[in-house]
Amino acid sequence: MKSIPVIIAGGAGTRLWPLSRDEKPKQFHNLSGSGSLLSETASRLTSLSPDMFIVVTSIRHEELSRKEMTAFNIPTVVLSEPRPKNTAAAILYAALYLSRAASDTVMVVLPADHHISDRKEFLRVLNMAIEVARKDKLVTIGIKPSYPETGYGYIQATENGDKVLKVEKFVEKPDIERARKYLKAGNYFWNSGIFVWKTSTILSAFRNLMPRQVAAFEPLTKLAPEEFSKSTGEAWAIKKKIFDEIESVSIDLGIMEKSDNRAVIPADFGWADLGSWKSIDDILSPDENGNRSPEPERTHFLNSSDCSVFTEGKRVTLVGLSNVVVVEAGDEILVIDKDSSQDVKKVVERLKNP
Amino acid sequence: MKSIPVIIAGGAGTRLWPLSRDEKPKQFHNLSGSGSLLSETASRLTSLSPDMFIVVTSIRHEELSRKEMTAFNIPTVVLSEPRPKNTAAAILYAALYLSRAASDTVMVVLPADHHISDRKEFLRVLNMAIEVARKDKLVTIGIKPSYPETGYGYIQATENGDKVLKVEKFVEKPDIERARKYLKAGNYFWNSGIFVWKTSTILSAFRNLMPRQVAAFEPLTKLAPEEFSKSTGEAWAIKKKIFDEIESVSIDLGIMEKSDNRAVIPADFGWADLGSWKSIDDILSPDENGNRSPEPERTHFLNSSDCSVFTEGKRVTLVGLSNVVVVEAGDEILVIDKDSSQDVKKVVERLKNP
Repeated sequence: MKSIPVIIAGGAGTRLWPLSRDEKPKQFHNLSGSGSLLSETASRLTSLSPDMFIVVTSIRHEELSRKEMTAFNIPTVVLSEPRPKNTAAAILYAALYLSRAASDTVMVVLPADHHISDRKEFLRVLNMAIEVARKDKLVTIGIKPSYPETGYGYIQATENGDKVLKVEKFVEKPDIERARKYLKAGNYFWNSGIFVWKTSTILSAFRNLMPRQVAAFEPLTKLAPEEFSKSTGEAWAIKKKIFDEIESVSIDLGIMEKSDNRAVIPADFGWADLGSWKSIDDILSPDENGNRSPEPERTHFLNSSDCSVFTEGKRVTLVGLSNVVVVEAGDEILVIDKDSSQDVKKVVERLKNP
Repeated sequence: MKSIPVIIAGGAGTRLWPLSRDEKPKQFHNLSGSGSLLSETASRLTSLSPDMFIVVTSIRHEELSRKEMTAFNIPTVVLSEPRPKNTAAAILYAALYLSRAASDTVMVVLPADHHISDRKEFLRVLNMAIEVARKDKLVTIGIKPSYPETGYGYIQATENGDKVLKVEKFVEKPDIERARKYLKAGNYFWNSGIFVWKTSTILSAFRNLMPRQVAAFEPLTKLAPEEFSKSTGEAWAIKKKIFDEIESVSIDLGIMEKSDNRAVIPADFGWADLGSWKSIDDILSPDENGNRSPEPERTHFLNSSDCSVFTEGKRVTLVGLSNVVVVEAGDEILVIDKDSSQDVKKVVERLKNP
């Protein structure tokens, strides 16, 4: 049974504004210095020798996605969404496409905005997950927490361990006290958003747990497979109607929290969710003063420490500062205390609706 | 006897980099929001109804200077220097020009990069200085210190008081302890760099105290007055030779510290030397959180206080910061702790000679 990577590239990446903007969200940016997040994500998966890639993205980023994927010489189907309706819709769309376009496959579902530093270990875990998925399980990768993060959801396993574990439950982002308890307990893992399952298994779960979403997609499944991915004509009109109608639900809430055949594989492969400017530090090497930049030749630090600079064009000089992030992109300059990283979303909302 | 403003606009303004750059130093920028520093300086002097303005500047900024001065409908003679040789050379050049172009006049010498908030009081003091200058005195304006500043030179008067005082001596930038002592003593004043004297008085002082500078300028004085100001032909060749040869000496060191007919007039007219990014705060009104910008519509402060933003084109957003200055100009972005303002000079040197 073939494995097919399904890359979810529909996010807006608001908290990485102003680099990440509506017209070019974070997954299309080269944050690490070694390619866009989307192409990094795909490149990690070429070892699986997939017959094809599937990328689910916004209609606005269809061309960007296609362009990023040309480098791989692997056929890529871009499934464009008329509007964002969260991960359940994106995954159902991909699963329905695969059910028409191929005989049963293993879907390897990954967000396009994560960083993974240990590729070898990542592939080892992924292959383990594929094995388990073949036995009709909904498999998720749980990241072993290294500190009490309050910004992620957690997966509670029924027991501690390194192998495939049963899922007790999915838990929401905790407060710091609870996060510390989770870290100590050892059977709580960060919800990575990486899922592995057979197309038939997840479709069956959708039919049981989200029948209305499945019903909404019905008209699309009547089209020939080669029509499925189109953003023109009848297919597009049908898709627009579907995405106008359906609920916006995450796969976690819609399926994983309710399923009874789920499994979690604990993993430790240098995973980072590049969700905020502070988190980007995880993928950039610091200089001797803790300063970071993917553009060192255009960045100068004087009497400064633990600062980070991202610049699209201008030279940036920092003097006498600590723990500050500077981002220059488009017509915007953002200067922010690193610990205010989560406030960037507020900034964007305020600038849009002053 | 007529009064002629002589505006010294030759500075490089390095500490206001990157706004102030070689091709357009600070005196040509609109820092206050109400015109360039040069035009602000000239505009304060129009009440003297001068027959002409003299601007001494670098050959590189001759056109910029001329352009700034067209607004005033008062004939302006721009005296261009082939290279900067400090204030003694600039003032001697202007004095020699005036001695050829007019009968004896009172020169009102002012740097182009100061801010003065109380124009009425400024003019009152200036007129007092002009009166004293007519009696063959070298008059300087001493600013009553409001706090123990260590970045300025001081003028020690022989006694306290509000009227014209005798100068005991000129003193260098003090350390903080000494600055506190000066503030308490009451007979120490900030050296404003504003001087008032008759052309004949200052030329006589030059002949006594800086005879070599006077000798170096000799060939220029042989030219017709209308040739004096030219930056072409023979006049320019002569000037180049002079400015190559002469020493670089300030008027303070070369004349004022040694003269025996000097006087100081204590003044309090909201004077600010716009010498560093921190000092620019003196001319911008703060919002309720102490944040400042001459471009409020392109500047956003969130959870920030006591920050200042200067932007030539981009929108700037600050989040969670305090006491930070952000400057966007040309191809450069500077982000600096306000108390590191004096380090900008170092930054520029380092960027030029990496």
